[in-house]
Amino acid sequence: MKAKLISIGSEILNGQTLNTNSVFAGKELSRIGIELSSSETVRDEEKSILRAFTNIEKDISLVLITGGLGPTEDDITRFSFAKALDLKLKESAKAKAKINDFFEKAGRKPTQTNYVQAIIPEGCTLIDNSWGTAPGFYIDIDSIIYACFPGVPKEFEQMFLHFADSVLKARTHETDKKERKYFKMYGIPESKVADIVRDIERPPGIELGFYPRFPEVHLEFSYSSGLSNDAETLKYLENTFEALKDFIFSVDEDSIAQKLIDALIKNQLTLSIAESCTGGLISQTVVDVPGSSKCFNLGLVSYSNSAKVELLGVSLATVEKFGSVSGDCAIEMAAGVRAKGKTDIGISTTGIAGPTGGTAEKPVGTTFIGFSTSKETFAKQFTFKRDRNENRKLTMYHAITGLIKLINTGKIR
Amino acid sequence: MKAKLISIGSEILNGQTLNTNSVFAGKELSRIGIELSSSETVRDEEKSILRAFTNIEKDISLVLITGGLGPTEDDITRFSFAKALDLKLKESAKAKAKINDFFEKAGRKPTQTNYVQAIIPEGCTLIDNSWGTAPGFYIDIDSIIYACFPGVPKEFEQMFLHFADSVLKARTHETDKKERKYFKMYGIPESKVADIVRDIERPPGIELGFYPRFPEVHLEFSYSSGLSNDAETLKYLENTFEALKDFIFSVDEDSIAQKLIDALIKNQLTLSIAESCTGGLISQTVVDVPGSSKCFNLGLVSYSNSAKVELLGVSLATVEKFGSVSGDCAIEMAAGVRAKGKTDIGISTTGIAGPTGGTAEKPVGTTFIGFSTSKETFAKQFTFKRDRNENRKLTMYHAITGLIKLINTGKIR
Repeated sequence: MKAKLISIGSEILNGQTLNTNSVFAGKELSRIGIELSSSETVRDEEKSILRAFTNIEKDISLVLITGGLGPTEDDITRFSFAKALDLKLKESAKAKAKINDFFEKAGRKPTQTNYVQAIIPEGCTLIDNSWGTAPGFYIDIDSIIYACFPGVPKEFEQMFLHFADSVLKARTHETDKKERKYFKMYGIPESKVADIVRDIERPPGIELGFYPRFPEVHLEFSYSSGLSNDAETLKYLENTFEALKDFIFSVDEDSIAQKLIDALIKNQLTLSIAESCTGGLISQTVVDVPGSSKCFNLGLVSYSNSAKVELLGVSLATVEKFGSVSGDCAIEMAAGVRAKGKTDIGISTTGIAGPTGGTAEKPVGTTFIGFSTSKETFAKQFTFKRDRNENRKLTMYHAITGLIKLINTGKIR
Repeated sequence: MKAKLISIGSEILNGQTLNTNSVFAGKELSRIGIELSSSETVRDEEKSILRAFTNIEKDISLVLITGGLGPTEDDITRFSFAKALDLKLKESAKAKAKINDFFEKAGRKPTQTNYVQAIIPEGCTLIDNSWGTAPGFYIDIDSIIYACFPGVPKEFEQMFLHFADSVLKARTHETDKKERKYFKMYGIPESKVADIVRDIERPPGIELGFYPRFPEVHLEFSYSSGLSNDAETLKYLENTFEALKDFIFSVDEDSIAQKLIDALIKNQLTLSIAESCTGGLISQTVVDVPGSSKCFNLGLVSYSNSAKVELLGVSLATVEKFGSVSGDCAIEMAAGVRAKGKTDIGISTTGIAGPTGGTAEKPVGTTFIGFSTSKETFAKQFTFKRDRNENRKLTMYHAITGLIKLINTGKIR
């Protein structure tokens, strides 16, 4: 089964809005065995919307439409949808009651503007919206399902999941499903991965995708679900893993931060982080992992020298003699935050992320990462040659992978 | 002048990658007076790519193609581009020399895989890539420009800016340009904005766009640049501003965090932040604003009670009597972080973001925000009714807008 997505919204084409619905739909469709074969974004103009409808490939049996169901004058999707499919429009009593209900709960009164959202093309089935006032709707015409959703991502996502579960799943077959496996790597360029993989004999039916995601490279294997337990497939995945294992940090969809949290929890270790050049990036990335509160005690962003000295106990002499961007300072920061947070491990970053601030002795990109445990405290020095954001990202990756290595070699307690 | 964007990449349609190039191209085209009239994403399959080429609307005079120029077997864009436009392919000596140069600088050796990127359709002009090995290229056929770029956002963005500047600008006219103005608002629903705006008489030629961006609402005005100094336009914008001014925090593209940093710098004030329920979100948002290091001294994420007590000087008695989610704790955290950071202002957050952790007395969403200056220290209590992420976002908005209000009323020093 193949699908097409039509996103409606001039704001997407004017560069004001990132179309996250398309990535969400693509992932969820793929999960249930439907291939999103194209995605088209058009302006909030009748002519453009109608053109997108005439532009549907012959092999498509699901058309998803998002956006333009709001209550304001630029929202014309319901009208164009009806025109494209030659359907009449009618106020839905059920949709109107939902709008009244929604406003009553919020303690507000709907206006005539809000009731526009109760106008639905005839013959359509409503798709419930628990987060907003605009219901979605779908209709089956000549074996093609046309389904229309609001564009607000939170509303779209919940409604789409419900729709996929209740309507789409019944129409897909187990054999349509594609299995996807990923090796997530760090520390190797994409072309090098390609060179290594080319030398490994690949059984038919397995497709490869190479995705550079700075600073990671992801290698994707996709094949029909019938092949998942096939001996040749398993052997091929094993051989490929073996050839790339030095660079692989994840063989599932887990992020590197998730791998760190898993390692900390498994070893019952706790962590504190003192950040200077990364400005909170590591803490924020760690906090975003569910369950991180079990092992992450204290995050500290100390830009100023006084914060380093007074809060982290870095000695003034160290700062004066070596500067705050130095291995000595990183070491004292890591030891200091570990003590303050009363954790098993403390890490620290200090560096010159750029674009300015470099000197002949310490050029832009000079970075120190400190690691402190009850067994040892040390710093590693790097010189990154990217821009500010990428230098900060590389610092984070080196800190996290360094930490995972430290945990796995067991030199902590 | 109208443009179409064709993004090539199965990974986008499989939901692995967010297409940020399309938002970037839309914004930049709009800036120079070119309308992106549609954007289509297709799989890395020759058939689909060729179909996208046949699918170009009659009024399009610029076709941008991104993605699929990498060195690996799934990268087929250069071949399909040549086939669609009936061009021969040839190794470009210039492109090959650039690849050699790139590898030499990185201290690595190119392989045959890398040289695929030097194969360019004949008649095309190269577009230089300073961040990667794949050059872009463009050609003008029957008054339509076809331009092809790599998909890696960092490479695409720099190359596209250069291309827009050197090739596109000469072909656009001042009168094509659209002026866009935005009112960014917080604290008012979209439908309410629409109701207010409907009552204001609008001169012809001004189009409106309403964009809910939780928890903000953006109102966009677009009109041809000839109208920018028109008396009626200015009067209309003024009247609309007057009617909505209680909710507007920005009349330019600045974020709310930028507004905070501006206010701090203008008043020469410094800030420290202690976060519990927001887990570093406020610090990270503030740090992302360029220049924030001038006024942001210390950010602290203290999940544990011990960190609150030992680092921030919150009294154990307060935590024991009122709990860490309490106005008293928020007040002591704000005063404590202000003292530790030696700043003019300290703010703090503590709350139950959810989904678990609520009690009858303190339901999920209960949040306290503390504010501390040399003049006063106080906390505000809120009960947010959204999900975990939205509750954290609302906490951030209330903290930042509260802070801006505090600075503007001048009760700081």
